[in-house]
Amino acid sequence: MLQGAAAAHPQYVRRILGFQVLTRADAPVANKVALVSGGGSGHEPSHSGYVGKGMLDAAVAGAVFTSPTPDQVYEAIKTVNSGKGVLLVIKNYTGDIMNFEMAAEMAQAEGIVVEKVVVNDDVAVENSTWTTGRRGIAGTVFVHKIAGAMAQTGASLSEVRRVAEKVIANVRSMGLALSPCTVPAAGKPSFTLAENEIEIGMGIHGEPGTHRETLRCADEMTAHLVNKILADMSLKAGDQIAVLVNGLGATPMMELYIVNRKVAEILKGLKVETVKTYVGNYMTSLEMAGYSVTLLKLDDELKKLLLAPADTPAWMQV
Amino acid sequence: MLQGAAAAHPQYVRRILGFQVLTRADAPVANKVALVSGGGSGHEPSHSGYVGKGMLDAAVAGAVFTSPTPDQVYEAIKTVNSGKGVLLVIKNYTGDIMNFEMAAEMAQAEGIVVEKVVVNDDVAVENSTWTTGRRGIAGTVFVHKIAGAMAQTGASLSEVRRVAEKVIANVRSMGLALSPCTVPAAGKPSFTLAENEIEIGMGIHGEPGTHRETLRCADEMTAHLVNKILADMSLKAGDQIAVLVNGLGATPMMELYIVNRKVAEILKGLKVETVKTYVGNYMTSLEMAGYSVTLLKLDDELKKLLLAPADTPAWMQV
Repeated sequence: MLQGAAAAHPQYVRRILGFQVLTRADAPVANKVALVSGGGSGHEPSHSGYVGKGMLDAAVAGAVFTSPTPDQVYEAIKTVNSGKGVLLVIKNYTGDIMNFEMAAEMAQAEGIVVEKVVVNDDVAVENSTWTTGRRGIAGTVFVHKIAGAMAQTGASLSEVRRVAEKVIANVRSMGLALSPCTVPAAGKPSFTLAENEIEIGMGIHGEPGTHRETLRCADEMTAHLVNKILADMSLKAGDQIAVLVNGLGATPMMELYIVNRKVAEILKGLKVETVKTYVGNYMTSLEMAGYSVTLLKLDDELKKLLLAPADTPAWMQV
Repeated sequence: MLQGAAAAHPQYVRRILGFQVLTRADAPVANKVALVSGGGSGHEPSHSGYVGKGMLDAAVAGAVFTSPTPDQVYEAIKTVNSGKGVLLVIKNYTGDIMNFEMAAEMAQAEGIVVEKVVVNDDVAVENSTWTTGRRGIAGTVFVHKIAGAMAQTGASLSEVRRVAEKVIANVRSMGLALSPCTVPAAGKPSFTLAENEIEIGMGIHGEPGTHRETLRCADEMTAHLVNKILADMSLKAGDQIAVLVNGLGATPMMELYIVNRKVAEILKGLKVETVKTYVGNYMTSLEMAGYSVTLLKLDDELKKLLLAPADTPAWMQV
């Protein structure tokens, strides 16, 4: 996969040979805080698709649904560090946190300044199969975009971290699955769902959600997700937000737009102003059918950074 | 779907109320040839995702896998016409050609200058379920991009058409399917494939390809597709091309990159220069698993127009 991605996008990314890492082709970028993210593979275009100007400096790819090992993350940190510090953007999974932290310690022992943020946007469940606390899912892409834009301005590590933490405080997501996915090494689906069954709050590795129920129409399922999200964030009339309707891998784009129709209707009813909507496959779960909805509450700073240009293989400017 | 797309991308697209058409939000664009495409729905982001500056002026959406009716296409033509003429970009399916041509006649009767091009890039089969001649598939997106860039320069209708015809002459595609898709109105898959079976040359509506065979590894299947394409176009060392590895809907992006690894290896072996590679879901078939490969032979004119900026919901600049 990494060979194919590097062959496709030589103007953007470069492999660290012998490691499962893609960095910016021009790494290290002088006088810029470097952003490193990653995690298990199978979530493409997360995270390698967001390597490029204005987003990530490196993405570390573990095996499918498996955290990358510390030596891989450490190699990424060393390669992209320009001397201005490195911020690790970690999705909240126990394995990722352990391995990214160990890599940070290895780098710090060599004098590299490394800090981290942990994304936990999934409101579905408080603890999960591989998580203490909430899981990090599609909202992570907003952290990449906004912290990446901040780093691109030449801001300090503490400033980049501050803005990343603000995104994490302001972003909420929830998803559901209509079908499982198959980890290649296992060769069979990690769970089963009946033909007319959905799992609400399913994680991006097939971790259990809140419950299963009979398939209902897109409007009803979407309203359920959005209402769960809204119950966990304070939004009032006049607030500005960004929306991400994210496909998990096998959901036709027409269905994602049908979902967005309902999301937009609910937000309009609340008199919330949607500054920008993203619809597509941003954080997938192999070929799982399903979707997640992410809402990000904006202030002037976040809005400006979200809308700033980025130039990466998978980030859509729309 | 159209309501959701218009709600997501108001800066790009606008609905013609009462019709299944999305036009550029700023249509008609003065002193510019207008491009109209479309066809059955279910191929998103084709074609509405390519409506915007530097690509299409309107996309007409039929029912799933069903040609839009002439009155819909006619409405699109009337709405985007600026007086400089309208080019229809039609995928080669009998129903699409009939309905787009009828719409063109209706518009011409009102004095609108309309011309058309027909894309037939699929080398798999000569005639098919809904086709006389070859089918139009993912290569159509290159026609949108390049003819759209030409129109954006202010070129005349005959010039825009000439360049569209050149793309059509230079582009070849072929795909395969690992699973069927389900048209919502039918409620069940349009065909079945055994667990370890693939159909080579499958069309984007589930039309039969050349044959079925037992699933082989991605490298072998990809080599088969690329060799069939190469047998139909004259490419020699030093030639420049663009590559599109297109997912049909349910193919994980990691698999598309694995495919591209092999495509890049074959092209490197031929000493062909790949100027640009696109990997992702550009022309889908609902939730079908599978992919197609498209090769476009470039000359200086096509290269320049391909790489020119475009600003639409789904076109990737990478």
